Amino acid sequence: MSHSPLVQSLIQSLCCLPGVGPKSAQRMALQILEKNRDAGLELAESLTRAIEFVGHCSQCRTLTEQTVCNICSSSQRDGSMLCVVENPMDVSSIEQSGEYRGKYFVLLGNLSPLDGVGPEHTPALLELVAASDVDEVILATGTTVEGEATAYYLAEHLASHEVAVSRIAHGVPLGGDLEYVDGGTIARAFVGRGKFN
Amino acid sequence: MSHSPLVQSLIQSLCCLPGVGPKSAQRMALQILEKNRDAGLELAESLTRAIEFVGHCSQCRTLTEQTVCNICSSSQRDGSMLCVVENPMDVSSIEQSGEYRGKYFVLLGNLSPLDGVGPEHTPALLELVAASDVDEVILATGTTVEGEATAYYLAEHLASHEVAVSRIAHGVPLGGDLEYVDGGTIARAFVGRGKFN
Repeated sequence: MSHSPLVQSLIQSLCCLPGVGPKSAQRMALQILEKNRDAGLELAESLTRAIEFVGHCSQCRTLTEQTVCNICSSSQRDGSMLCVVENPMDVSSIEQSGEYRGKYFVLLGNLSPLDGVGPEHTPALLELVAASDVDEVILATGTTVEGEATAYYLAEHLASHEVAVSRIAHGVPLGGDLEYVDGGTIARAFVGRGKFN
Repeated sequence: MSHSPLVQSLIQSLCCLPGVGPKSAQRMALQILEKNRDAGLELAESLTRAIEFVGHCSQCRTLTEQTVCNICSSSQRDGSMLCVVENPMDVSSIEQSGEYRGKYFVLLGNLSPLDGVGPEHTPALLELVAASDVDEVILATGTTVEGEATAYYLAEHLASHEVAVSRIAHGVPLGGDLEYVDGGTIARAFVGRGKFN
């Protein structure tokens, strides 16, 4: 080990970032120390402040330092639609598409009986649906076994409420050559086929 | 933009890391806030401490918080060999190979007349060579135009000192299939060919 203790401990700390291994952590540490100390200090401060103040939106449970997040408090969003996603990352992916103008509910994890994760989020979701004027709940959990199980579970519990329950479409992605799309996706695209217009 | 100001500013700060774009910065920020706040705080502290205390070794100029780095102060390193590299990253790459047991001199950048970078490092290097019992200077600057120019420039200035000056070998990397090696490297491998034994 050729690094001094402080440099070494910075490299180790950088490894906590997703997708960062020892090699890139080393490159990051040395580049910050060599060329970019101001940005490094700014990063340390942003980290500390975000970790201290950012919590969850009291309505949709996404990450925010406000009590109610921008989307939940916006008057321009359609309160009749509620999109259920797994985590805050999904909210931002959907926002980037620009298609959806309704509100969100973030599960913060899936139903996963094997990991001992039960349906703690269901009461909060049902409460929100009951208390607000939601007409349609769009289930946008992932296509993993847990994501599908969560969608089924939620659909079942929402059945007793007066809301339409839908699931986002799964199929061949745009620009996707059939040659490179997996069999499971193609099978779903056939099952979910719609009328050609 | 669907993120709250603090989350957004954390994402922007993470973009200062080499190889991190907006998309991975977002993933890092949300993962830290969602799952790994302790590690995030530790990272902020490591950054602050390293930036505050880490400077350059007074002898070889690599990054360290000590006055003299581990390698320069080690009695087990061969003081008769001095390897000249561009930056602290190179030191750690060479150390990982386990082959070299001499000492180092870190240029902290190349000679680059176009960028207005002159040979400021040369006096320090010549001084070190003159003051110590170095027998051989091994030039391990990169194979870019600047790296090569720096090697030539240093070799010229070292000629008046009583030291052997060598350059690390360039050629086909181990495990490298000729098919995938660029023409320039193959040409260098031919020019630098050695006797087969």
